[in-house]
Amino acid sequence: MPELTSFGESLLRLATPPETPLETTDTLDVHVGGAEGNVAVAAQRLGIETTWVSKLPSTPLGKRVTSTYRSHGVSTAVQWDEGGRLGTYYLEPGSEPRGSNVVYDRGGASIRTATPDELPIDPIVNADALHVTGITPALSDTLASTTERLLSYARDNGTTTVFDVNYRSNLWDTKTAAETLGGLLPQVDVLFVALRDARQVLGYDQGPEAVARRVTDEYDLELAVVTQGEAGALAYDGEAVVEQSTIPTETVDAIGTGDAFVGGFLAAWLTNGTLETSLKWGVATAALKRTITGDLALVRPSQVERVLAEDPPKIDR
Amino acid sequence: MPELTSFGESLLRLATPPETPLETTDTLDVHVGGAEGNVAVAAQRLGIETTWVSKLPSTPLGKRVTSTYRSHGVSTAVQWDEGGRLGTYYLEPGSEPRGSNVVYDRGGASIRTATPDELPIDPIVNADALHVTGITPALSDTLASTTERLLSYARDNGTTTVFDVNYRSNLWDTKTAAETLGGLLPQVDVLFVALRDARQVLGYDQGPEAVARRVTDEYDLELAVVTQGEAGALAYDGEAVVEQSTIPTETVDAIGTGDAFVGGFLAAWLTNGTLETSLKWGVATAALKRTITGDLALVRPSQVERVLAEDPPKIDR
Amino acid sequence: MPELTSFGESLLRLATPPETPLETTDTLDVHVGGAEGNVAVAAQRLGIETTWVSKLPSTPLGKRVTSTYRSHGVSTAVQWDEGGRLGTYYLEPGSEPRGSNVVYDRGGASIRTATPDELPIDPIVNADALHVTGITPALSDTLASTTERLLSYARDNGTTTVFDVNYRSNLWDTKTAAETLGGLLPQVDVLFVALRDARQVLGYDQGPEAVARRVTDEYDLELAVVTQGEAGALAYDGEAVVEQSTIPTETVDAIGTGDAFVGGFLAAWLTNGTLETSLKWGVATAALKRTITGDLALVRPSQVERVLAEDPPKIDR
Amino acid sequence: MPELTSFGESLLRLATPPETPLETTDTLDVHVGGAEGNVAVAAQRLGIETTWVSKLPSTPLGKRVTSTYRSHGVSTAVQWDEGGRLGTYYLEPGSEPRGSNVVYDRGGASIRTATPDELPIDPIVNADALHVTGITPALSDTLASTTERLLSYARDNGTTTVFDVNYRSNLWDTKTAAETLGGLLPQVDVLFVALRDARQVLGYDQGPEAVARRVTDEYDLELAVVTQGEAGALAYDGEAVVEQSTIPTETVDAIGTGDAFVGGFLAAWLTNGTLETSLKWGVATAALKRTITGDLALVRPSQVERVLAEDPPKIDR
Amino acid sequence: MPELTSFGESLLRLATPPETPLETTDTLDVHVGGAEGNVAVAAQRLGIETTWVSKLPSTPLGKRVTSTYRSHGVSTAVQWDEGGRLGTYYLEPGSEPRGSNVVYDRGGASIRTATPDELPIDPIVNADALHVTGITPALSDTLASTTERLLSYARDNGTTTVFDVNYRSNLWDTKTAAETLGGLLPQVDVLFVALRDARQVLGYDQGPEAVARRVTDEYDLELAVVTQGEAGALAYDGEAVVEQSTIPTETVDAIGTGDAFVGGFLAAWLTNGTLETSLKWGVATAALKRTITGDLALVRPSQVERVLAEDPPKIDR
Amino acid sequence: MPELTSFGESLLRLATPPETPLETTDTLDVHVGGAEGNVAVAAQRLGIETTWVSKLPSTPLGKRVTSTYRSHGVSTAVQWDEGGRLGTYYLEPGSEPRGSNVVYDRGGASIRTATPDELPIDPIVNADALHVTGITPALSDTLASTTERLLSYARDNGTTTVFDVNYRSNLWDTKTAAETLGGLLPQVDVLFVALRDARQVLGYDQGPEAVARRVTDEYDLELAVVTQGEAGALAYDGEAVVEQSTIPTETVDAIGTGDAFVGGFLAAWLTNGTLETSLKWGVATAALKRTITGDLALVRPSQVERVLAEDPPKIDR
Repeated sequence: MPELTSFGESLLRLATPPETPLETTDTLDVHVGGAEGNVAVAAQRLGIETTWVSKLPSTPLGKRVTSTYRSHGVSTAVQWDEGGRLGTYYLEPGSEPRGSNVVYDRGGASIRTATPDELPIDPIVNADALHVTGITPALSDTLASTTERLLSYARDNGTTTVFDVNYRSNLWDTKTAAETLGGLLPQVDVLFVALRDARQVLGYDQGPEAVARRVTDEYDLELAVVTQGEAGALAYDGEAVVEQSTIPTETVDAIGTGDAFVGGFLAAWLTNGTLETSLKWGVATAALKRTITGDLALVRPSQVERVLAEDPPKIDR
Repeated sequence: MPELTSFGESLLRLATPPETPLETTDTLDVHVGGAEGNVAVAAQRLGIETTWVSKLPSTPLGKRVTSTYRSHGVSTAVQWDEGGRLGTYYLEPGSEPRGSNVVYDRGGASIRTATPDELPIDPIVNADALHVTGITPALSDTLASTTERLLSYARDNGTTTVFDVNYRSNLWDTKTAAETLGGLLPQVDVLFVALRDARQVLGYDQGPEAVARRVTDEYDLELAVVTQGEAGALAYDGEAVVEQSTIPTETVDAIGTGDAFVGGFLAAWLTNGTLETSLKWGVATAALKRTITGDLALVRPSQVERVLAEDPPKIDR
Repeated sequence: MPELTSFGESLLRLATPPETPLETTDTLDVHVGGAEGNVAVAAQRLGIETTWVSKLPSTPLGKRVTSTYRSHGVSTAVQWDEGGRLGTYYLEPGSEPRGSNVVYDRGGASIRTATPDELPIDPIVNADALHVTGITPALSDTLASTTERLLSYARDNGTTTVFDVNYRSNLWDTKTAAETLGGLLPQVDVLFVALRDARQVLGYDQGPEAVARRVTDEYDLELAVVTQGEAGALAYDGEAVVEQSTIPTETVDAIGTGDAFVGGFLAAWLTNGTLETSLKWGVATAALKRTITGDLALVRPSQVERVLAEDPPKIDR
Repeated sequence: MPELTSFGESLLRLATPPETPLETTDTLDVHVGGAEGNVAVAAQRLGIETTWVSKLPSTPLGKRVTSTYRSHGVSTAVQWDEGGRLGTYYLEPGSEPRGSNVVYDRGGASIRTATPDELPIDPIVNADALHVTGITPALSDTLASTTERLLSYARDNGTTTVFDVNYRSNLWDTKTAAETLGGLLPQVDVLFVALRDARQVLGYDQGPEAVARRVTDEYDLELAVVTQGEAGALAYDGEAVVEQSTIPTETVDAIGTGDAFVGGFLAAWLTNGTLETSLKWGVATAALKRTITGDLALVRPSQVERVLAEDPPKIDR
Repeated sequence: MPELTSFGESLLRLATPPETPLETTDTLDVHVGGAEGNVAVAAQRLGIETTWVSKLPSTPLGKRVTSTYRSHGVSTAVQWDEGGRLGTYYLEPGSEPRGSNVVYDRGGASIRTATPDELPIDPIVNADALHVTGITPALSDTLASTTERLLSYARDNGTTTVFDVNYRSNLWDTKTAAETLGGLLPQVDVLFVALRDARQVLGYDQGPEAVARRVTDEYDLELAVVTQGEAGALAYDGEAVVEQSTIPTETVDAIGTGDAFVGGFLAAWLTNGTLETSLKWGVATAALKRTITGDLALVRPSQVERVLAEDPPKIDR
Repeated sequence: MPELTSFGESLLRLATPPETPLETTDTLDVHVGGAEGNVAVAAQRLGIETTWVSKLPSTPLGKRVTSTYRSHGVSTAVQWDEGGRLGTYYLEPGSEPRGSNVVYDRGGASIRTATPDELPIDPIVNADALHVTGITPALSDTLASTTERLLSYARDNGTTTVFDVNYRSNLWDTKTAAETLGGLLPQVDVLFVALRDARQVLGYDQGPEAVARRVTDEYDLELAVVTQGEAGALAYDGEAVVEQSTIPTETVDAIGTGDAFVGGFLAAWLTNGTLETSLKWGVATAALKRTITGDLALVRPSQVERVLAEDPPKIDR
């Protein structure tokens, strides 16, 4: 079975019921979020052996994170920290036109001090692929340096490096992001990038296909996947360009959609799926994610297959 | 007041919250389901005196079933079983494209051993109408035989027999179903059948009106009602053919829609409603059911009337 | 900061979960409702200093009302009553075609005996504006008289009087309402009236603009705002007529929409907003209200601004 | 099977979670309470055919009451009222030293206008026993008169009359109560009275046994049961005096304990149980009630038997 | 009405259900805690006009704090901070021998940078009394200095200064605490100190009465109150020594007991209650607090009076 | 790190809220139970690497079981079954004298057909210890035979065999149990037996110490632990006899206490703890379990240490 390792920050997600503001809610629903863990869970549930690497505070909140991932089959390799805290985000989900509102409280997280020396390296150098995102280098200078080193270790050991740009304007500005990413992308084999990020951060002002071709050339990528939100996604592997539209959903919770896409894509691609199949698994997993509360794509392979079937049956009875 | 008796299996329905899979849910919502009980509750609430006949395990779970039906006014006539169990089904409701998922756990249910001798017969032979469905004979050979005997008793005593085909591919194949139903239909006065079942099980490949006419001729029916899901329903009483489209709904829970239709239809028809009125009450009850969680159509006559009114008012204040 | 005082009845709102009828629900969600308090909370949260004046039973339920309003920043000036009760309404929210159902239980409420002598007058005569609705004079003869006296006190002290017709057919018939309102309107400076009420109660059968002009002339108003539900609203200040359409919403709870509109409108208008801005704030607050459970518009100014922005961002991260 | 009919008021009980005051609770738990209905449910569940007679508002809240009783097997015979309301009480359960707090809101209830002519009389004159309490005549002059007439009807038709004094200082003073009860007790066969009420209302200042003997003599009773709260109960049937101590409990909800005692006692006594057995069933049912939230004694005969067993087993597995 | 102002940190309290660890809980209950706010709420509800002064992040979480206090009648005077965060603590309540477990996450809180210049001073210099605790100077050097300045301002303006030692070993060691408190106590008029803190921090090794006398002499106090947990409390005003034992409780939530004691004591003492009365109100409020979930003493004066009554009645009905 | 493997049945546990009977509950709380899984989770959380071996239906309910165990760090080695079902038990927790009531629904479970050939053997033959209980051979003849074979495999490969008698009268009678256990015990190294089971099943009528000595001699045990419920436990290793009393608890949920004892004992004993230490860890883990809802002992080593400390601190702050 192919193996995938991801490295990054996870946060406690504390959400109000959909119709209730933070000022008046009596309860908060507890979930665990974080792009890399989201990808790991989606991929594991869809058939890839995954390991999540990180640094966490040695508190019941930190254990909550590993407990959650383990319950979905993901292995965890964690450097436990006596001092730091677990990043948190508060979510007020809301229907339109109120929309969802997020209050971040992620300063001082343990992972911000993670160095390559203290992190478990085995799951990275032994995996078939390593997944990191642009969120991690944005969190601290230490993490920017650590991210570069881990990508480098992976490459040196034959592990395919997968990078999702995932620009976050709350964490850094486009100029700093561009500089840092410029240093990381030469270590990358497979790139996921939103068309919007390609424009704002990488400075590409073309259409999606041209962006995919250009970034592949510029960084000598094995594969580039350009996503456009509801307009679908496009993959280019140096030869073919394949496009895939999204699947209509009754959305319950949109957070984690992009990560579900990556997890579904990789689950197919790492088992030698074609670009077509991988894109389909990506959009199907993303669509299923949107029907589930929480950041995690708690889907089963049979559900992906049902979504992609020509004529999905109603309730089976 | 006209009287209706139904006979069949009820199950405990254990449902996750809509956004949560069975693997992670902390709670299950408890309801009682089962086609014949669903029909009984709908009809009773809409003005018919109904009795539900069955065999149940003599446990708090079995009592739960009668307690639920009684709370809605239905009388219960039950053979209590010391040994068997209560069939159960687990429901994961989900929005599209995930859809709802059902895990059946109905093996070994007490009713599967029910014989005509042990069941209370009075409520059947004294009623104006007896309602059974094709689910019951599918559950065991004993029940196939019992169903036939009860239909026969009813007929012999002047009770109108109502049969809803309700084919369930989880319980038997179309061939076995066709054979068994072939033996039962000659005892039937009023038939409800989905167009899909008419095709798959009865082997009729015509349109709905032709199906209604043909089945009426073939089995000398008093009335045939052919349903087509969202495409509405059609009734034929040997003279007139009446069609009725469905009513648009914001669906909360689709399970039990068909039974609500039958219950609403019978509530009107058994009080000498016309075919037009009966179909309207059927589709209105079905539409209302879809706005309520659980298998039961917890509707009031005033709500049916409001739905069927030309210009329903907003909140009355 | 401008000051607004409102006077009227508040009720305990006890609501079932959306999919559950009153006959079977195990829990009721507790909220506080009442048109004038709804307006006060919306205006206070959007930047106006507001005070709510009323008479309440001296019980934990009565204190619940002031506690709720105070938590949103509203000051409360209450005559405590040893004997009466708190009006209550039971709500069964439902999706279509079931719709929401309200069971009123508001007889014998303490406020029905409120006289001008016992009520706190300072917050009325010192405010910039006094808000009352047509619900209050409908509740009792005493209150009809009290309402007239309070409007008169306000006017005599330079407080702008704001009146929302809010006809309730459950409380009185159109003839009685027309007579009573005919006595009150000469004391009114700013009138809010639904087009439907203008027709049924005031007997105007023109279009909205003509109604606004006619009622302004007839009662020498400073400002008339005519609302038309989903068709938007229109304001006329003796010079200009300004129209505003509503904002599409995914509605969670429609109760209180009209009050949110008034609260949002007044928040802008009392801070010297133009008619255009005031109408925009009205419809934006109303739209936001519909995404929140409960009668109260628990919105923040930043949310109103987001709704009115040309290109509102997605989740900010 | 012996038959018992009870007549009286039922109320909606709306309770906060145990640790939360009414001013801040977000939810209320819904139950149905009322002494006579409590007795009916306890007796029915323990094997007596019972009917509850009353007058209720024709609203979903009124239906809630009959739905609840019917779910426990009790038959209901109700005069539906278009105009009145359902009495309500709010409960703040609390541990010591806070204690539980009740806010009554029972004015204007439909039953207060119930006359003998409009009530269903069959279930009263045909029963083996009729149960009423001193709460009912306290609610209105009409009900005082109605209670007397119903007791008289019962007696005239050979139905044993059972009366529980149940003095409520919130409803009337001891002097009025004494006068009214003085008129009713001559119609009574079986009397339940708390020692405290015997002292405060009936003016007996002796010990429990003397009270039982004196009241039996004075009103020519068939049976007198004197209860003393945690000190147990005592029965006198003109011959023997039998005493019974209470059973220790971990109390979850004390409301309804006395009614559970009466229901358990009558369940045994009406099936020809001895005084000893009847008292034991009374105290066991009362003890079990205290472990269940809500006014109703949702117990099973097997649980009563387990409580009264010499050496009750632990969990049976 | 006497006025009390308190100054200090408030935290978001996120608690699991009592039987569930943080690693597995699906929900957290939201409350607001913090010693000085707890005292303010208790005193306000018991009849003192109180104001709470602090610095909070300008987020919905910060607004939650003022919303909570305002709902209980407390005025809030807050410096809003654009940058910091709200301190949080996670609570796992547990019965014995597991006990309750707290995970603090209070680093980086906005209040840690609060200077006298930016805080609202009016509510401090105009109050009858100012309440601060030893937690505040422990949070940062800035706050140690600010605390001293506020005590000094208060004294200079005739406001009685009330100080509760409240030593927290998580925040500082006893040596640092002793030094800092040594600088603050000369500004204090009324001192609350746990006997344990008097020993560990102040270095007094006598019994409670001797401690009260010695600390009064040493710092020229107007009043010293020494608390001993379940062993009760003792007050010394330079003349009399009064002792008071605690009141037995069925404890639901012990957090905030000490603050409830101070709030109840001050509510009596600031209205010229005797030492005896003030101590009684302190222990009664503390006992009532323990029956309520959350840090706040949501009690009513009538409940304090009931607890202190000779023969408290059962449920009043 | 020492390794422990357990083999046995797990069940879905569906529990009502403590105060609500199965007939009326609206929700059920979902947990996973089963003696061997309970032991595995306790031991894993306290520091032993554990693996749970079983056969489960290939449904979301079956996955729920592995997901739960994995979330607590336990590895799972499962034979997935396409056909069977997951055993279930319904729990009505109740305080005294009602007590808790269990309704078993465990017939037809997948594990009942588990043969040695289809089960994963590696985790058994490679572990330091194998844990099985007397429940497993009671479930079916196949399992009795499988249990014997697995014990034999373990012994042959140097794995210490641990057996907990755990007699269940619902599953078999004492005579059959005695015969079957007589065939298994010669394969056992470490025996846990309740004194009551030693008497009823093994026929030993001595005191606990004599039982421990006799059973050790008779079956050539390495270690015998005799438990006596609240009276504590006793261990005999062929040399010393050590006794340990239980720790007082405020019990929330007693189910799983015995398994927590075994898990805690083994966690210490397998890391070379003395008999004294192992018994202490057993009783401490058992006491902590009783404060947590669910069958699992969700404890942390620090909590065990706190319980065993001389002077456990209050909340650490």
